Amino acid sequence: MEKREKVLSRHVVYRGRILNLRVDNVRVPSGKRAYREVIEHNPAVGLIPLTDDGQVLLVSQFRYAIDEEILEIPAGIVEDGEDFEAAALRELQEEVGFTASELAHVGSFYSSPGFSTELLVVYLASGLSPSKLPEDDDEFIRTVSVKVGDLPAFLKEGKIKDAKTFAALSWLINQDL
Amino acid sequence: MEKREKVLSRHVVYRGRILNLRVDNVRVPSGKRAYREVIEHNPAVGLIPLTDDGQVLLVSQFRYAIDEEILEIPAGIVEDGEDFEAAALRELQEEVGFTASELAHVGSFYSSPGFSTELLVVYLASGLSPSKLPEDDDEFIRTVSVKVGDLPAFLKEGKIKDAKTFAALSWLINQDL
Repeated sequence: MEKREKVLSRHVVYRGRILNLRVDNVRVPSGKRAYREVIEHNPAVGLIPLTDDGQVLLVSQFRYAIDEEILEIPAGIVEDGEDFEAAALRELQEEVGFTASELAHVGSFYSSPGFSTELLVVYLASGLSPSKLPEDDDEFIRTVSVKVGDLPAFLKEGKIKDAKTFAALSWLINQDL
Repeated sequence: MEKREKVLSRHVVYRGRILNLRVDNVRVPSGKRAYREVIEHNPAVGLIPLTDDGQVLLVSQFRYAIDEEILEIPAGIVEDGEDFEAAALRELQEEVGFTASELAHVGSFYSSPGFSTELLVVYLASGLSPSKLPEDDDEFIRTVSVKVGDLPAFLKEGKIKDAKTFAALSWLINQDL
């Protein structure tokens, strides 16, 4: 049974800084027409920076869309044409002031496949060494270091309110470290 | 240091079926102005349906935004004014044809807090029994049953391309079942 929906027409409603909004007319498998609202958004990379002494480096920052300061793994949008691993190392440096000798791919998953094209690509970053440029200093992003052994309680207590961070830290707990 | 961004003006660009788009003018802590693109989206509930014999019930469906059929935990948008647990039981019935005697809250996290208000609330559903209405039959959503013991390999092989599903299944692997 053909499940794919066929696009009949596309209409870009808004072209923005970090996202575009499209509303498409589609034909669904039953033969009827429907419309689909799609948020186009560049991919993002996320890092699980793991220190030699078993701590994870998270960041705390204010997120306007939810009007709240929350804890997340360091992450950022991949620039057009940018290599994913290069983006990962760039964000690691900009957000927590480290570079990594090892990057291991953890997973790639869409943040909200029901309406958004945003792909999140997560890496474990290890073999860390300090690497900060003066212009990376952002007093609005704070680094928070958590022992791997404390992560299960952290998650259970509802301290992680970001999907990719919940996914990444749950994954990390599963690894034999 | 005050990190909150202050809204100066709000502008609703698009009011849609499953989302609205707002572009706000804000004052950032440094004193400068910036604009923030925000996708308003109702919360969603997700289920980890766990059978008595240790299988998880996932669903496979076509997702137009990413032009791909992917595996996810059963999930759906919470209707205006709907109770979260009621929404969870409704989606469990509609998508996989079961009801649950036990719902345990696993976590609540934003799918993409950088630009979206969408909150994902995930429950473990157990004590399952069949409960299907004829109108729930959707030939475009297919149930896929996976043994809990097979989940680590599943994730490692990149079979899960959805953030909330990666989070939920990683969490499940951590539980002593």
